[in-house]
Amino acid sequence: MISLSLQTSARVVLVDITALVEKALVTSGLDEGAALVFCPHTTAGVTINENADPTVRRDIAMALERLVPVDLPFAHLEGNSDAHVKASIVGSSVTVPVEGGRLALGTWQGIYFAEFDGPRRRRLLVQPLAGSRP
Amino acid sequence: MISLSLQTSARVVLVDITALVEKALVTSGLDEGAALVFCPHTTAGVTINENADPTVRRDIAMALERLVPVDLPFAHLEGNSDAHVKASIVGSSVTVPVEGGRLALGTWQGIYFAEFDGPRRRRLLVQPLAGSRP
Amino acid sequence: MISLSLQTSARVVLVDITALVEKALVTSGLDEGAALVFCPHTTAGVTINENADPTVRRDIAMALERLVPVDLPFAHLEGNSDAHVKASIVGSSVTVPVEGGRLALGTWQGIYFAEFDGPRRRRLLVQPLAGSRP
Repeated sequence: MISLSLQTSARVVLVDITALVEKALVTSGLDEGAALVFCPHTTAGVTINENADPTVRRDIAMALERLVPVDLPFAHLEGNSDAHVKASIVGSSVTVPVEGGRLALGTWQGIYFAEFDGPRRRRLLVQPLAGSRP
Repeated sequence: MISLSLQTSARVVLVDITALVEKALVTSGLDEGAALVFCPHTTAGVTINENADPTVRRDIAMALERLVPVDLPFAHLEGNSDAHVKASIVGSSVTVPVEGGRLALGTWQGIYFAEFDGPRRRRLLVQPLAGSRP
Repeated sequence: MISLSLQTSARVVLVDITALVEKALVTSGLDEGAALVFCPHTTAGVTINENADPTVRRDIAMALERLVPVDLPFAHLEGNSDAHVKASIVGSSVTVPVEGGRLALGTWQGIYFAEFDGPRRRRLLVQPLAGSRP
């Protein structure tokens, strides 16, 4: 398992971690299988989406904000309940197929750390998983 | 890794890919572990839900449409921002346990390709992951 | 693969299954890799969120209820369409990295069975996945 760290720059922001994950994958030496990219926090998650137009990331953040506004009548009193809910909607990890030692992402896909309660110093785990061949 | 293709028939539709994935699994020869079913696109995803009553699939599409209407004030100007958001909500992959060379799905579960910006020709990746036995 | 069962106590409730999963992991003997925690039902899911303040779980349930009310104009006539939609939003599984035979969860993370159509007797599958080392 490879442990990485990153700094997020806003309360809600999607940070492109594709290059970080690719580098960890090379370190791992995995040829065929998958890379589990796991967020060990409860007010952030990991998602895959478009790597070209940065407005897509902002649209995702905006739409999630409309779905789970920060001022819903929450019982948890730390002021970040919306972030917990968003983390469960987006999910705490992605699993990406690996072939020939490379992430088998689609042409337009990037991997994003989805920060919902930043800015903060965050950790990220990358666990290579062994494939199975005939 | 096994690469499959499929044609979707509407802008938003859940396509049953359970048999496709099962066939890929047999080809892989995996006995125990999991099948990673991965969508390499950013306006579609993969989900697991009921395989019996087809109205469930339509209800899921309808509810997602209400959550993320196509006419939100999006910044991305291709007219498919709602599809990007729905892809991140549903997720780009599912991982299904495999035992005795078969998908360990529940009785009522099927695997669905969740198209949010069709109709299109789409790809789908199935990566067998090795289990670990005592 | 290890099959577990649990009883849920309400229509919508997040049940802490972290200890159950940890115990299954020890049984599996896996040292390095990941634990796939899979829900074989279509009106429930699995999610990771805060393990300290129990109000977070109730806030997640409340926010999902606002997102997908039980009385939307659903076509499926069993009265539990909202539960099917919530299952696809939260997801049917989580995959947790394993190192040194232990779940590599963050300090504040717990694993939850997300019941959306209880109370019911439910099953849960834990599949250890083999890691890959350099």
